[in-house]
Amino acid sequence: MSEQHRPVRIVDVAALAGVSPGTVSKALNNNGLLKDSTRDRVREAADKLGFVPHAGARSLHSRRTFTVGLLSTDNAGRFSLPVVLGAENALLAGQVSALLATARHDPVREQHHIRTLVSRRVDGIIVTGRTTEPRAPIEALAPVVYAFAPSTDPEDASVVPDDATGMRQIVDHLRTLGHRRLAYVGGREDQRSSKVRHEATQTAAAEQGMELVGPPRFGEWSERWGRHAVDMLVADGLLGPESAEPVDAVVFASDQLARGGTDRLRERGLRIPEDVAVTGYDDWQVMSLASRPPLTTVDMRLETLGQRAAELLLAALDGEPLHGTEMLAPRLVVRESTLGTS
Amino acid sequence: MSEQHRPVRIVDVAALAGVSPGTVSKALNNNGLLKDSTRDRVREAADKLGFVPHAGARSLHSRRTFTVGLLSTDNAGRFSLPVVLGAENALLAGQVSALLATARHDPVREQHHIRTLVSRRVDGIIVTGRTTEPRAPIEALAPVVYAFAPSTDPEDASVVPDDATGMRQIVDHLRTLGHRRLAYVGGREDQRSSKVRHEATQTAAAEQGMELVGPPRFGEWSERWGRHAVDMLVADGLLGPESAEPVDAVVFASDQLARGGTDRLRERGLRIPEDVAVTGYDDWQVMSLASRPPLTTVDMRLETLGQRAAELLLAALDGEPLHGTEMLAPRLVVRESTLGTS
Repeated sequence: MSEQHRPVRIVDVAALAGVSPGTVSKALNNNGLLKDSTRDRVREAADKLGFVPHAGARSLHSRRTFTVGLLSTDNAGRFSLPVVLGAENALLAGQVSALLATARHDPVREQHHIRTLVSRRVDGIIVTGRTTEPRAPIEALAPVVYAFAPSTDPEDASVVPDDATGMRQIVDHLRTLGHRRLAYVGGREDQRSSKVRHEATQTAAAEQGMELVGPPRFGEWSERWGRHAVDMLVADGLLGPESAEPVDAVVFASDQLARGGTDRLRERGLRIPEDVAVTGYDDWQVMSLASRPPLTTVDMRLETLGQRAAELLLAALDGEPLHGTEMLAPRLVVRESTLGTS
Repeated sequence: MSEQHRPVRIVDVAALAGVSPGTVSKALNNNGLLKDSTRDRVREAADKLGFVPHAGARSLHSRRTFTVGLLSTDNAGRFSLPVVLGAENALLAGQVSALLATARHDPVREQHHIRTLVSRRVDGIIVTGRTTEPRAPIEALAPVVYAFAPSTDPEDASVVPDDATGMRQIVDHLRTLGHRRLAYVGGREDQRSSKVRHEATQTAAAEQGMELVGPPRFGEWSERWGRHAVDMLVADGLLGPESAEPVDAVVFASDQLARGGTDRLRERGLRIPEDVAVTGYDDWQVMSLASRPPLTTVDMRLETLGQRAAELLLAALDGEPLHGTEMLAPRLVVRESTLGTS
C-alpha cells in the first residue's frame, strides 16, 4: 500500500475529461445514463492518468472488482446448489470470486441482498431459482444472467435446461426398445416443468407413431404420488394382470415420482422392465440409483448450466451480452429400469 | 466518489506514527510480525487522521471489510449447505457478506481459495466439511471458525453436532416405549459419526438397563446396506418369525440406512413399530418423511450450527475468540416408526 507518487484522484480524471466527478463515477462503474461518447472520453482520461477507482491492482486495468454475486432463492439446494457450484467453478477459472446471497423466496430479503451486492460493487449477478418457473427480473445496474429459472423479460440473458429435448431423448430410447404404448405421470400441473415435459412426451410419441394412453396424471412432486399414480393406472386398466391392453412403459416427470412408482409396481408383483419399463427425470442419484431397479433418467447437467451462466456473465462484462434464453441440452442416462439386467 | 478534501494517504499515517508505509499496511491489516506497541501507535495515528484503508465508509471506523469467507469442501451439499445457509443468515443480520469458496476435497484448490479469500481481505473464514471427521486447520491470518468438521487443533474454534447426546435421546425415547433389546446398524466403521453414535448407544443402553444385542454392524452409508443389515439380523436370529428372542428396536446410524431397513422389514412382512421399532439419524426429510412409516430420528440443527459458527466468528472479530470445540445439542424428532399411528 505504499505510494511513491501522489495518487490520481477522481477530480483529476474529471478535469481532464471535462466532466463532473459524479459523471466519472458513473462512467467507470458502468451505471447511470450517459452518452457513449462521454463514457469513452472518461475512460480514456482515466487510462491516461492511470486512475485506480478501487483498491486492488487488477482493477487498475479493468475497472472490475472481480467479484460476482450469486443470488439464490432456493433453501433446499437440490437444484440450485449444482448450478451455484458450476458457476463458482467457472468464475474461479476466470479469477473471479463469488458473493453468496440466499433469499429463500423472501422478496424483502432478496431486495436487501441485491442492495448489498450492489454496494459491494459486484461486476455482475447470477440469479438461480428453485424451479424453472420464469421469474421477475431483478433491479440492478450490473449485468445479470438468470440460470435455471429464466427471467420473464425475453431481452434478459437466461440459461435453462432443455426439458423438451430431454423428454424426446426418453421417448426415442423407449421406441428403440420396441415400446409403443406409454403412460405419463407428472408433478404439479401448474408448473412449467410438468407441463413442458408432458407436451414434449406427447409430441415426440405422436411423431414416432407411439401412443400416449389415457389422460396425463398430475400431482405433488413426491414418492407418495408416484405410488398412488401406479394404483390409478391399475384401476384404469392400463397396468397389471387384469389389464387387457397394458402400457409398455410409464414415463414419470421426476426421479422422485419414479422411485415411488417402482416401489408400488414391485409391491404389486409387476417386474421392471419385463412387465413395464419405467423412466424418471433429473438423475438425482439419491433417488435414481436407490430405486430398484436403478432408473433410466435425464441428467439436466446443472453444473454445466451454472458454468454456462458464468461464461455468459463474463462475456457480458467483456461487452458481449446475450439477449434471450439459451437452452442447455440434457443427457440421457440409461439404467436397468428400461434395459433390465441382461 | 467525489472528494471535498485531500484524502489522507498511507504516507501521512506513516509520518505521524514514525514508521514506514509498509509497517502501516501491516499494522492495519493485522498481518506481519509487529510489536503490539507499534501496531497501537499506527492505529492511533490512523484514527487521528481519519485514514480510510479501503473504499467504504464502514471500514473507516472498524477496519473491516464486512466480508467473510465460507470455505466448503462438500460437493454434495447435503450436510454443509444448511450450515452455509445458517451462517449466511446470521452474517447478514450482522451486515456481513459471505464469499463462497467450494474446494471439493481438493487440497490444491482449497489453498488457492484461501489465498483468494485472504487477497480479498475477508475479516474471517468459516470452514465447513462434508463429514464430522476432524480436519487439518487452514493457514490464514484472519480468524477462522470450523463448523460441522472440527479442526484437529484443540485450540481452534470449532462447533460440531453433539452426536452422543442425539443417540442418548434416541435410547431414552425407546426406553420410555418399553423397549429393552436393541440392535445397532452403523455406517462406515472408520468414520467418527459411525463410531461415536455406536458408543453412545452402547453407553446409554447400559445406563438404562437395556441390552445392545449382537455385534455392531457397519457398512456403507446406503439404503442397500440398510436392507442387507436387516437380512443379517434375521439370519442371526435377532428378527423375524423364526427368532426365539427378537430385538425390540433397530437403531440405524442414518435416515438413509433406516429407509433401506424399513423397506426390507416391510418386504419380510414385519410390522413397524408393532414387531420392531426403527430409528434413523439426520432428519434428512427426503428419507425420513418418505420412509414407510416416517422415521423417528434426530435433527442435528445444521442451520443453527451455521448461525452459531457465524456468531463465534463475529465474536472473534470483536476480540473474543473461542478456543476449543462447542457441541450443539440436537433435537429428537418422533414419528410413526416408533410411535405407530395410534
